[in-house]
Amino acid sequence: MKAYQYETLELVFEARPEHGSEAAIDLAAEFTVNGRTHTVKGFYAGNGQCKLRFLPEEAGQYRYVVRGLAEESGTVEVAPARPGQHGIVRAQGIHFFYEDSTPYYGFGTTVYALAHQSDELMDETIETLRSAPFNKIRMCVFPKHYSYNSNEPKYYAFEKTEDGRWDPSHPCFAFWDAFEKRLNQLFEIGIEVDLILFHPYDRWGFSSMPQKDNLIYLDYLLRRFAAYPKLWWSLANEYDLCPAKSMEDWHEIEQFVADHDPYHHLLSNHNCFMYYDASRANISHMSWQTKQLSRIPEMQQKFGKPVSIDECCYEGNLPDSWGAISGEEMTARFWRAMVRGASCTHGETFFPDETEIVWWARGGKLTGRSPERIAFLRGIIEALPAPLEPQLSGLQKLAQFIGVQGGEVEKVLGEQNVPENMRFFMKSTLRMPREEAERFFACEPESFGRTADDSAILHYCDILCSCRTRMELPENKKYTIDVIDTWNMTRETVQTGACGTIWVELPSRPWMAVLAVEEKQNADC
Amino acid sequence: MKAYQYETLELVFEARPEHGSEAAIDLAAEFTVNGRTHTVKGFYAGNGQCKLRFLPEEAGQYRYVVRGLAEESGTVEVAPARPGQHGIVRAQGIHFFYEDSTPYYGFGTTVYALAHQSDELMDETIETLRSAPFNKIRMCVFPKHYSYNSNEPKYYAFEKTEDGRWDPSHPCFAFWDAFEKRLNQLFEIGIEVDLILFHPYDRWGFSSMPQKDNLIYLDYLLRRFAAYPKLWWSLANEYDLCPAKSMEDWHEIEQFVADHDPYHHLLSNHNCFMYYDASRANISHMSWQTKQLSRIPEMQQKFGKPVSIDECCYEGNLPDSWGAISGEEMTARFWRAMVRGASCTHGETFFPDETEIVWWARGGKLTGRSPERIAFLRGIIEALPAPLEPQLSGLQKLAQFIGVQGGEVEKVLGEQNVPENMRFFMKSTLRMPREEAERFFACEPESFGRTADDSAILHYCDILCSCRTRMELPENKKYTIDVIDTWNMTRETVQTGACGTIWVELPSRPWMAVLAVEEKQNADC
Repeated sequence: MKAYQYETLELVFEARPEHGSEAAIDLAAEFTVNGRTHTVKGFYAGNGQCKLRFLPEEAGQYRYVVRGLAEESGTVEVAPARPGQHGIVRAQGIHFFYEDSTPYYGFGTTVYALAHQSDELMDETIETLRSAPFNKIRMCVFPKHYSYNSNEPKYYAFEKTEDGRWDPSHPCFAFWDAFEKRLNQLFEIGIEVDLILFHPYDRWGFSSMPQKDNLIYLDYLLRRFAAYPKLWWSLANEYDLCPAKSMEDWHEIEQFVADHDPYHHLLSNHNCFMYYDASRANISHMSWQTKQLSRIPEMQQKFGKPVSIDECCYEGNLPDSWGAISGEEMTARFWRAMVRGASCTHGETFFPDETEIVWWARGGKLTGRSPERIAFLRGIIEALPAPLEPQLSGLQKLAQFIGVQGGEVEKVLGEQNVPENMRFFMKSTLRMPREEAERFFACEPESFGRTADDSAILHYCDILCSCRTRMELPENKKYTIDVIDTWNMTRETVQTGACGTIWVELPSRPWMAVLAVEEKQNADC
Repeated sequence: MKAYQYETLELVFEARPEHGSEAAIDLAAEFTVNGRTHTVKGFYAGNGQCKLRFLPEEAGQYRYVVRGLAEESGTVEVAPARPGQHGIVRAQGIHFFYEDSTPYYGFGTTVYALAHQSDELMDETIETLRSAPFNKIRMCVFPKHYSYNSNEPKYYAFEKTEDGRWDPSHPCFAFWDAFEKRLNQLFEIGIEVDLILFHPYDRWGFSSMPQKDNLIYLDYLLRRFAAYPKLWWSLANEYDLCPAKSMEDWHEIEQFVADHDPYHHLLSNHNCFMYYDASRANISHMSWQTKQLSRIPEMQQKFGKPVSIDECCYEGNLPDSWGAISGEEMTARFWRAMVRGASCTHGETFFPDETEIVWWARGGKLTGRSPERIAFLRGIIEALPAPLEPQLSGLQKLAQFIGVQGGEVEKVLGEQNVPENMRFFMKSTLRMPREEAERFFACEPESFGRTADDSAILHYCDILCSCRTRMELPENKKYTIDVIDTWNMTRETVQTGACGTIWVELPSRPWMAVLAVEEKQNADC
């Protein structure tokens, strides 16, 4: 058996589970390496085949023992990761890294019902993604029913009971095989799948199964999929629009997934209105539907976890306000997120012809103007020496300790070592109620980011059309300054050896950015 | 003496006040018409001339009695208003109307130091304004010191004491004469002057005079200017950035102006950070520096007074974020305000050459791209059958009663007579903390307005690029539907006789609007 670190390893056994136990067969294995033991459960794949999947997260000789419907033991030699295999993406502070410490910057897209289309359409979607700038996709296990999205899928995840209810105890193996095929195609082209386990846009009843059935379904899914390294768990798309589930239900689902995933994949829950509480221990990052991108630093600070803007409207021309932003605006929202060290997710919603094929739900081709610009941005971000931390403007920083009233103002100012010329501004802002201050500063258009070691500093000017901008660089490093036109996708080096306070000329157009990258040779200013 | 309703009437007396009393001479008059008596004070104009100005707000035969430095009585026949004279602008609910009930829609601009420039520049500014779309200007009594704005004025408002302090007891009459000349030129071309009485951008000391001196200055100004119908009092530009004045000082200044203005001109106080409390009895409207234009309905409701967006950044290309928005964005901000039944104020800040002439501070010529579009908008707004009320989208309405928790949700839903298909959305939003809900809904891009009698309904699509949009029109009226391109300044009638729910085709571009105007002949749908 040939096995590699970070690649799924599969054992297959001929065995037939008892009728009724197909979704939760009695099959488990222990994999032991270097004194560490990992326990995983198997699943029934139909056709008299039981399978056991395991993801070796380190290289070495593993000993395994299989028990239950099949009994077997042996060893497997896991070779070090092959090129291009980096392991599971994990959260570390506010950033994502692959398991091998490679930074992961999330450039997502959205094809909710990708796996519920005709083979031709799914093939086309995969082809499109092959050359698209995205390294993450948000997609659903269950089919989707919504405007522009009414086709009937070929397979469903489960068989039905005699009285017509979905029966998660009887998985529809053709569904899972077909679904898996598409997952693997996505994985092969380097795309992380943020797998949406539940969602409200449903005419079949998958969103309103009894909680007992939800857990049977999840158990099977986790046994089958958890060993895929490029998978994330998204408990829901718009959890708060699922009428059949209470917050207690969500908490139970969250705990179940966390308990039954031996690898602790990224786990989040995507909102419509109220964001899910990302401070919960099982939640790895904030998956946030929002237009309030200037609040990213607030959420990074609040949760100490990565923030992924997993819906910020889609490029398109639908009558619906969520699906009618321009390519310029979609591109700008990516910059607003990325400059602050967050991730962002794209979607495309052009009003369809009678085929009803809209990228955001069903896939197909991309025709918008943002993907090319997102590719340009991805090139810039991935070439940075380290992930960006959000940087607040001088006035934005004030908002962080707003709400101090009266006599305490002086105390706060004293503690903050504020330059004299800023003190008066600060006193004025400190007198604002906290809520007003937060809303005030959230309207500042520019975005700022810098790496923790100041090796790169990025300023996104957004809608501002300034003819020049000032940058404050450390005095003890030298920087190369590039002016970037984020829309026209040009990048020009305008200064080298820069340090301290500098002025950078700009073309008086919106959508500009300035990037300062530390020059390798160290020198005084 | 020839006098007209709504036009300032002036009596001149040869008299010299005692030295030291020039700013507050002993001269007053009573004007009585139809049993109503108005008392006004006179002022010393220099050169041995004392003057008394009175604004007759109704036509009729007035009897007047002058007492003090001059004694005189007589009658004056005040003829009804001449064409084009509408009287003082007053607040009525959330709208402005001239005294004769003509609606006033505020299309402002900003030239802070208009009256402190060379004669040539001031003449040029007036010429520019003659063909500009503005019917209001924000300008200061005192000169302004700030970036791009360092010139020395020819005159100052006061003489100095022997020890070099400003002495408001000794007005500099040349200053007041010159200032008045410019005011009158503005009035003649139909521009309301929102006169800024104090501001922080100062190197001369006018912003830090003792409060006693502030009141002497205001007394003189009010005696001299209050009878001008086209004048509004703006206590300050950015009151909260004036270090020498406490909130108590502002309240005293506010009360003094209210007490000493016999005509009760519009009175407001313009903020930088925290808006001034417009619920105060003396405050006629909210003069708001903000980018949060979606909060206009909140403020209209909170204060029950007109909202004037008196600074929302300026069209230009300065390095400063407040002076670097595009013509598109400036135009959009006007639409966002106007569609909601508010007023808006423009400014222009293009990086100057060595002459340091920037419109926003000093005047000159307008070179931006928004004024032409603001003129187009003004044409549309002024042709409406009545002022617009802000209209919230379905979801935005929810935000108004957000914050109800748990069991009360059902009660609120019951009271609101909510359609079944909206109830679930509402329950979800009702579970948001109020602050989150407000911030969420404030991000909705579209703006909606309609007249109280549904005679006109205006939907501004803002950044949305929809290919079509839905309008909900009353069933019992018929409407003509125009599609407006707010940037390209086109307006096309696309439907007539429309009522009920209609779809309107749009060109999949941003900055579109749809206007439904009731057709004159009444008919059923």
